[in-house]
This record gives sequence, structure tokens and C-alpha cells, in this order.
Amino acid sequence: MAQDAQKQPPLVIQEQGSFTVGGTVLTAPGSFDPKKPLTPDGQTFHGDHLYAFYQIPPTPHRYPIVMWHGAGQFSKTWETTPDGREGFQNIFLRRGFSTYVVDQPRRGNAGRSTVEATLKPTPDEQFWFGQFRVGVWPKYFDGVQFDRGAETLNQYFRQMTPNTGPFDINVVSDGVSALFDKIGPGILFTHSQAGGPGWLAAIKNPDVKGIVAFEPGSSFVFPEAEVPSPIVTSFDTIAGAPVPMTDFMALTRIPIIIFYGDSIPAKPSDIPTQDAWRGRLEMARLWRDTVNKHGGDVTLVHLPEIGIHGNTHFPFSDLNNIEIADQVSKFLDDNKLD
Amino acid sequence: MAQDAQKQPPLVIQEQGSFTVGGTVLTAPGSFDPKKPLTPDGQTFHGDHLYAFYQIPPTPHRYPIVMWHGAGQFSKTWETTPDGREGFQNIFLRRGFSTYVVDQPRRGNAGRSTVEATLKPTPDEQFWFGQFRVGVWPKYFDGVQFDRGAETLNQYFRQMTPNTGPFDINVVSDGVSALFDKIGPGILFTHSQAGGPGWLAAIKNPDVKGIVAFEPGSSFVFPEAEVPSPIVTSFDTIAGAPVPMTDFMALTRIPIIIFYGDSIPAKPSDIPTQDAWRGRLEMARLWRDTVNKHGGDVTLVHLPEIGIHGNTHFPFSDLNNIEIADQVSKFLDDNKLD
Repeated sequence: MAQDAQKQPPLVIQEQGSFTVGGTVLTAPGSFDPKKPLTPDGQTFHGDHLYAFYQIPPTPHRYPIVMWHGAGQFSKTWETTPDGREGFQNIFLRRGFSTYVVDQPRRGNAGRSTVEATLKPTPDEQFWFGQFRVGVWPKYFDGVQFDRGAETLNQYFRQMTPNTGPFDINVVSDGVSALFDKIGPGILFTHSQAGGPGWLAAIKNPDVKGIVAFEPGSSFVFPEAEVPSPIVTSFDTIAGAPVPMTDFMALTRIPIIIFYGDSIPAKPSDIPTQDAWRGRLEMARLWRDTVNKHGGDVTLVHLPEIGIHGNTHFPFSDLNNIEIADQVSKFLDDNKLD
Repeated sequence: MAQDAQKQPPLVIQEQGSFTVGGTVLTAPGSFDPKKPLTPDGQTFHGDHLYAFYQIPPTPHRYPIVMWHGAGQFSKTWETTPDGREGFQNIFLRRGFSTYVVDQPRRGNAGRSTVEATLKPTPDEQFWFGQFRVGVWPKYFDGVQFDRGAETLNQYFRQMTPNTGPFDINVVSDGVSALFDKIGPGILFTHSQAGGPGWLAAIKNPDVKGIVAFEPGSSFVFPEAEVPSPIVTSFDTIAGAPVPMTDFMALTRIPIIIFYGDSIPAKPSDIPTQDAWRGRLEMARLWRDTVNKHGGDVTLVHLPEIGIHGNTHFPFSDLNNIEIADQVSKFLDDNKLD
């Protein structure tokens, strides 16, 4: 067996498989000549679709869960954790949900991009160790919910994969919206960079019936007249993105919960990977208040405030991910989303 | 439900998950400064690993099956077929095997490459329609085992994904060998471009206990003194690759079966996507004869010769893929690999 066996009952899956959805088609001018098949004339290129792998239990809950990775990540985010335990893919299957783990357009298995890109192997993992709040390299945070074995860190670094085309918030939110068109009403889990396009997907598609956002990044949408002042951190400047009020109001019609983990400084820090999250958490609170002011139902859970300590940027794969899943299940249950 | 429901009993899975294996690490000179996290100094880059998603039934057969995609493809090759039926991932799970579907290094979810690459969206799908022997664009072959619906072709084209670094036969065969080091003895299924590195993986790792090769491409290894004359086609020239006799002999110690589909011309054709396969089949026969001359056990099945007609370059996902799976099961059974 590949991983340490966990004594769990078997997963029972009525149906599993994969498909692509959404995207566009380029067509080269001219006409195709089968005797010159390597010239592009008259040929097509299908790209910018989303890839999904799905599993459906025998008697699933009403709503499936769509799990959308963050920056540099892919479906693996929700699969086996870096230290070899079950991730949210399995945990929510065991809790009776159909799951759709996706690779967004231009990432991972959805690699065919209609826009050219150059991929360079730039060493950057000590940055990610900090940005993902495992610690400040080479030191792990005290009490961090992250296994300190060497192979865990190896798996963690290798669960990244590059963009195969420019990141485009509209292309990726279109992909997820197309997925909801195909599967119907469901719940959206987002992580980090997917937070922002997640709001757009819910604006675009009323089949998004609720959102669980883990550590949304720097992209928050506000009504045009209510965009707050940018927040300056030692990493970057976080600016709200204006959208028409009619679009914004879509976000007031569904329950949303946002989780942030631990080790986010309350005051400005000269460590950029620390300060980045101070600013994001602050912007998230402004966003929550704005949505709720317009009649929305956003809950922001800063985990240490409810006594859950040590979480990184990946609460769903941290050592206490069952406890995090319980928080999510409570939200789903409270909002009749299960 | 995402796909047309097929009335099948549920899949029962004792354990499923994913991991990466193999690969290398680059380290930039200098030392990491947490206050300048976006400069590469002293940072690392883990790349060139293989990604695997695995499923283990409650009482699996002795040997797991590793399924390795071909050129431009990824794990999807073995998952849901373009027309929405079950692929070999599910079929062999149902037959009691543990399955490992992989993305080779520098492809799909194993995207982090230690060598730079530029990805261009070059229209090429009418070429692939021919090269994968669905037909000669825009005409499907008469009797082809491929659904003619528009959405099937859409899914088929979108199940491609680019190399994220240069294709390197040693890097990818090292990745698969590392997988066998991790999981122990097993069976290797290869498709197309994976055929050649598949022979290398078996040379590198005695835990490869048998190979089922679907339409291996142009890369066949021969003893240095026995490399046949290159075969010239209107697509390319196919040359055997020399390896030391001691390496070659590893391939005589395991059972190997090779399948080729239909629509391969017996005589030279001026349609390059047709003629390419005449040459590959001819080289595969020379290779079979050479391995067997040295005491090996290679069976080459040209499917039309046993009365199975209409197969494309993807027999394992063609409309008759259950019939193909039965041929594979017979091979596994005959060779005590199940």
C-alpha cells in the first residue's frame, strides 16, 4: 500500500469519473491538408476548459461539493495530505457528499491554454513555506498543525504545479460557472487565490448555493461606490475590486463562511509573508461587513478566536483537518446545505 | 449526475489518495532572506517528480496496475472515456486490481519542471484526429470504435495537456521506476509515447512484473549489435535505440503484450498519420522477434488479426473497451499476474 493504512471503513462510490467543461476554441485560418498534418492551417485548438474528477456515493446529500484549489496548487490540495492522511476529498465523501475536485483552466490537468506562457523553474519554496504560514524559513511556527517530517515537506513542495497560461480571473471563474451549469446546484469550497474568482463564479451562476472560503487571497469585490481604501502591507497593496451593485447583491443571497488560520500578526510586520495575511484578513473583515450591511450572510471565522490554534494557510489539510471539517459540516447543516 | 449513469454496482475502495514520487531539487546560490522572500537566493525548487492517484479495493489482486498515458495525454486517458463510459481505471478496479493512474514528470499535475519551456497554443487537433486514427479529418474511418457525437470529440480534444518541460525519456522512466520502488511489484500499462520509456522503466526496475503496451510509439530498444535498419514512413523515420545487452535482457524476463488497433495500412501511404503506424507496427514486430529470439515472452496482437475491428490508437477507451479489457485480463491470467 502506498500510504500508511488508516483503519477506516471502505469508501463506497456509485459512480466516479472525469470530464472537462467550459473553455474556448481557436481556429487557424486556411484549410487542413491531411498530407501536411503538422501545419496549423485550418486546425483547431480547444483550451481554457476546467478539468474535474468526481465521485458520487450511493445516496448523496442534495448538493455536491466543488473543491477549487488556490495559487500554484491543483486538485491535490484536497486529496491526500502532505503527511499521508485523508484530505477533504475523502472526508466529505465519507460524510455523504458527492465531490468534484477541479483543476482550473490553465493549471494542472486543464493545461491547454489559448494564451502562450513561458514556464521557468525559479526557486521559490522558502517563500511559499512562509506565505503558506508553515513558519518563517527555516523555522516552523510553534504549535503549527503541520507534520515536521522531511518527506512531508517534500510532498508539500511537490504538490505545486505552474500556470500553463496567464492567470485570468474571468477565464477561471467562467470555467467553474460552466461546471455548475453542468452539475446543477451545489456548494463551492475555495482556497486562497480561488477566493476572488469564487465570488465571481457565484455572481455568474445562481447554482452556487453556498461558499466555504479558506483563506481567500487579495481579491474581494465591492459595490462600485463602496470600495474601501487599499490596505498596504510589507508584501503588497490589497485593493478591493469594484463590481456593479446588481452583481454584488448576488453575494448577499447565499450563505458564506470564511476561515482563516493562525499565525496572522495583529500589527504590521516587516516579514512580508506574515504581513500579507494581516492585510488579507483585514480586507476580508471589511468585505464581510459590506456584504452583511446589504442583507448578506457572511461569517468570518478566525480560527484562533474560537480556540482552534496552529492552522496554516491550508486548514483542510492541516493535522487537525477533521476538526476543521466539523466546523464546515456545522455550517452546511446550519444552512440546510446538506 | 455528471455523466450518463451506468447501472453498475458501486465501487468499493478500501483506500484512495495521491502522492508524488521521484524527481530532483534545484537550489539557488546564496541564502534566503525572509524579508526579501521573492528573490530566489538560497531557495529550492522541487521538480521532475511523478504524480499518482491510487485506489485500492478491499482484497486486491497481488499486483497493482500502474497506468501510464501517452503523448499529450495525462491520467484522463484511463478515466472516463470521451463519450462518458468507464475507462480502464474503473474497469480494472471492478476486476479487483489496485490502480495507480499517473501523470509523468513535466505533464499535467506533475507540472513542476526543472527545465524551462514555452507553451504555445498551436492548432493541431486535425493532426491528432489522424494520428490517433479516429479517421482522416474530417472523415471518420468506417466502422471506427469511436462515438461520433460532437461532445465526444470536444472531450477528446480537451483531454490533452502540454508538456511543461522538455520530454525526457530518462526523466519520465526514472519517475515510473521510483513509483515501483515505492509500491513494490506490479504491472505496467503503457500507451503510445510511454511505450519506449516503459521498456526503460522495466530495465531499471525488476518490480515491473509485466507490461501491457497499447500502441507503443517510435521508441524501441535493441541490443547494440542488433539494431535494425531504420523504417522510413511519410511521417517520420523510426530508428531502434541501442542499449547494452545486459539491459536488454531484462526485457526477456517478463511477459509483455502489445496491442495495436485497426486502420493501419499494410502498404506505404502518402497520408503521414496513416503511414506513421505502418512503420511503428513493423518496428514493433521486429522488436518482438528480437526479444523472443533472446528467450523473451512478447506477444504482439494486431487486433484485426484476431477479429477485433475498428480500434483507434486508444483501444482502452474505444467503444469496445470491455472486449479489450477481456484480452488484457486473459494475458494477466495466463501469466499469473492476477
